[in-house]
Amino acid sequence: MNKPRKKAISARQSTASTPVLDWRIGHAEYDDRTGRVRQELEARNLDGLVLFHPVRMAYVTGFFHLSTERPMAIVISREGGVGALIPHLEKGHIAKASGVTNVEIYPEYPTGGGKHPMFHLGDLLKALKLNKRGVRLGYDNNGYLDVNGYDGPALSEIVAGWVECVPARDLIDRLRAIKSANELRLIEESCVWGNLAHRLMHDAIEVGRGAMEIWLEASHTASQMMVASLGPQYQPMTIAFGFPAMASFTAGASTSDPHALNSAMGLRPGDVLVTYGGADVGGYVSELERTMFLGAPGKDATRAFESMLTLQQAAFDAIRPGRRFADVEGEVRSVFLELGLLEHQRHHTGHGIGLEGHEWPFIDLGSDDLVAENMVLSVEPGFYLPGLAGFRHSDTVVVRANGVERLTWYPRDLDSLVVAV
Amino acid sequence: MNKPRKKAISARQSTASTPVLDWRIGHAEYDDRTGRVRQELEARNLDGLVLFHPVRMAYVTGFFHLSTERPMAIVISREGGVGALIPHLEKGHIAKASGVTNVEIYPEYPTGGGKHPMFHLGDLLKALKLNKRGVRLGYDNNGYLDVNGYDGPALSEIVAGWVECVPARDLIDRLRAIKSANELRLIEESCVWGNLAHRLMHDAIEVGRGAMEIWLEASHTASQMMVASLGPQYQPMTIAFGFPAMASFTAGASTSDPHALNSAMGLRPGDVLVTYGGADVGGYVSELERTMFLGAPGKDATRAFESMLTLQQAAFDAIRPGRRFADVEGEVRSVFLELGLLEHQRHHTGHGIGLEGHEWPFIDLGSDDLVAENMVLSVEPGFYLPGLAGFRHSDTVVVRANGVERLTWYPRDLDSLVVAV
Repeated sequence: MNKPRKKAISARQSTASTPVLDWRIGHAEYDDRTGRVRQELEARNLDGLVLFHPVRMAYVTGFFHLSTERPMAIVISREGGVGALIPHLEKGHIAKASGVTNVEIYPEYPTGGGKHPMFHLGDLLKALKLNKRGVRLGYDNNGYLDVNGYDGPALSEIVAGWVECVPARDLIDRLRAIKSANELRLIEESCVWGNLAHRLMHDAIEVGRGAMEIWLEASHTASQMMVASLGPQYQPMTIAFGFPAMASFTAGASTSDPHALNSAMGLRPGDVLVTYGGADVGGYVSELERTMFLGAPGKDATRAFESMLTLQQAAFDAIRPGRRFADVEGEVRSVFLELGLLEHQRHHTGHGIGLEGHEWPFIDLGSDDLVAENMVLSVEPGFYLPGLAGFRHSDTVVVRANGVERLTWYPRDLDSLVVAV
Repeated sequence: MNKPRKKAISARQSTASTPVLDWRIGHAEYDDRTGRVRQELEARNLDGLVLFHPVRMAYVTGFFHLSTERPMAIVISREGGVGALIPHLEKGHIAKASGVTNVEIYPEYPTGGGKHPMFHLGDLLKALKLNKRGVRLGYDNNGYLDVNGYDGPALSEIVAGWVECVPARDLIDRLRAIKSANELRLIEESCVWGNLAHRLMHDAIEVGRGAMEIWLEASHTASQMMVASLGPQYQPMTIAFGFPAMASFTAGASTSDPHALNSAMGLRPGDVLVTYGGADVGGYVSELERTMFLGAPGKDATRAFESMLTLQQAAFDAIRPGRRFADVEGEVRSVFLELGLLEHQRHHTGHGIGLEGHEWPFIDLGSDDLVAENMVLSVEPGFYLPGLAGFRHSDTVVVRANGVERLTWYPRDLDSLVVAV
């Protein structure tokens, strides 16, 4: 009996020293991602890929960072090797990234007294054997992004004429769209804390209180609870200047603008609220939105709410692996038409979500792409009645073999969403 | 005596109905800005300017918005007329923008069943007589930005061969660098609330508490006070998903990374903290950073702190209208050299600040541009001793005729910045 017991203990110990859930993606998964990037480079006949967008850089290496006027880039060579262009400032930081073999450091932007950082990128490409005759190089942008006043030459200008530069922004975005088990776990955990923030906000809503006062308080408490629960390992990755967990809402006539800015106005009886809840866990986010009422809604608002529920259910039902996104959107559109609400529809049904709050793909009439298992999507068909209000629930769902599974479980029914006045 | 008194009262009434300070820039100033853009177009022999960056769009029209995969643009014609490309979603929102004469609305991204939004931009340019033979068009980007999975054709592709498209990103950025009296007033108000957030955080720092717990609480309280004081008109413009006023810090060895991510680790005696405080008032921000100590610092840290103060004072003294930024940086560099700290300098002395936390210009050896009156800059020469800590104060200053005026007044001296343990 001794031997098995010993074994069990040692297994438990090894689990304790490397916890299953430390709120970030592990090295093995980053290796897997760069492997899949290389297969895709092979399929597209590309020798390398240059990424300038911070989220794509983080996706392939775990290098989450503050994007500023100082350009950074990750280069993946098909033959092996991952390069990083970074400013001196980030020297300590890049060491924590996964799989980076070549680091090119420049002093400062615009030059720090040396040459422009983009010419250092040229050197990095040389070191990776990607700056020579016959090379085909994919990029997400033909140069660094327009951030904080940055300016500089295009990638195609610094590699000279003998390297062919080819747009390939969708390469990483398509890989990102299909979530791994680890990614789904982080998104589920994001839903937990987005749900708490939303619940605390909901319970604090009352006539006369300022909107911002309410949601600042709820976001603060939920963030404190999240940090206390997830432990000192926890770090917000994407929302460096904000709440780890957050809820907010717009109220009254401004809800008829789908993307209204936040306001500090006081709440009045009869207000319709359109809410938001979410959280950043390991860089992954989720989206929960509800249409709420301050006092029982009148006939028109009640009918509108029921129509909105019908539309969202139609959208849930329409999403299945193998269908075109355009066909999903077409099906929802036909329900808008039946309900006589097409003229008040002002956006499509939803979008991908993961490392960004909005990401590829889009549930849109213009998308020929196919729904696939393990995609995570927002489902939020909404309509906006001028002078009355906006009506929109948004849920985060994962696509399973037979349809969608809802990851945000906040109540959707009218009774649960009316605040007594 | 009656007449003057009546006059005074009526003036007061008119002030009451249009308050001097409603935390945003007024229409007259936006008109002035587009006027200055047109002078610049004249000087550069351009017929129009296409802006895709949300901050530049906001600068010329007050159209603050959430930037997503749905492309937006503002077009300024030299001959008159300001066009806006927007998705159906933002239809209500654009009406509040200043001076927009032509609005082109597209259904949705990628197409919403119609054509790609960039071809709608082609139509807008036609309506403004800017899509015809002989036109020279400036742009901040040759197409919409890489946001949330957006993809699409370049501007130069949709206007066909007869329009010449020319990079002109710096046109708006150079105008933005010189602040108006109204802008200075908003930045000063940002300093007030950044200072409160920092003070509350400072007073709450103690051994054993988690870093994030402390700064979340201070940011929350300062934000509540700011919203309560500035009133229901107040709206955060740039930080849609965060705190109106915020303070934060990194602690311990991680401060030797200038841009370390936030962490929830507990504080220990001997920790060095590098802090941040700021706030969003009418879209304008400021920057306050301090090096702090948990318990009296040892000899090495004290000497490093004093060197850092010397460097910052040298930087304050070096900034005067008419000087080259490269010369300012060179002067600070010579002090780094004297102090034997050049090898630990990891970034230049500072950057412009206003609608963005970092913006053009940069105090850098590579900048031939000249310091000018009413520029607002961060002044933050820092150094980073591996294994010990980072040492950096950052103050926001405005350039006056004879030098700089400090807008952030938080104490800089060692005694004020040691927390007893």
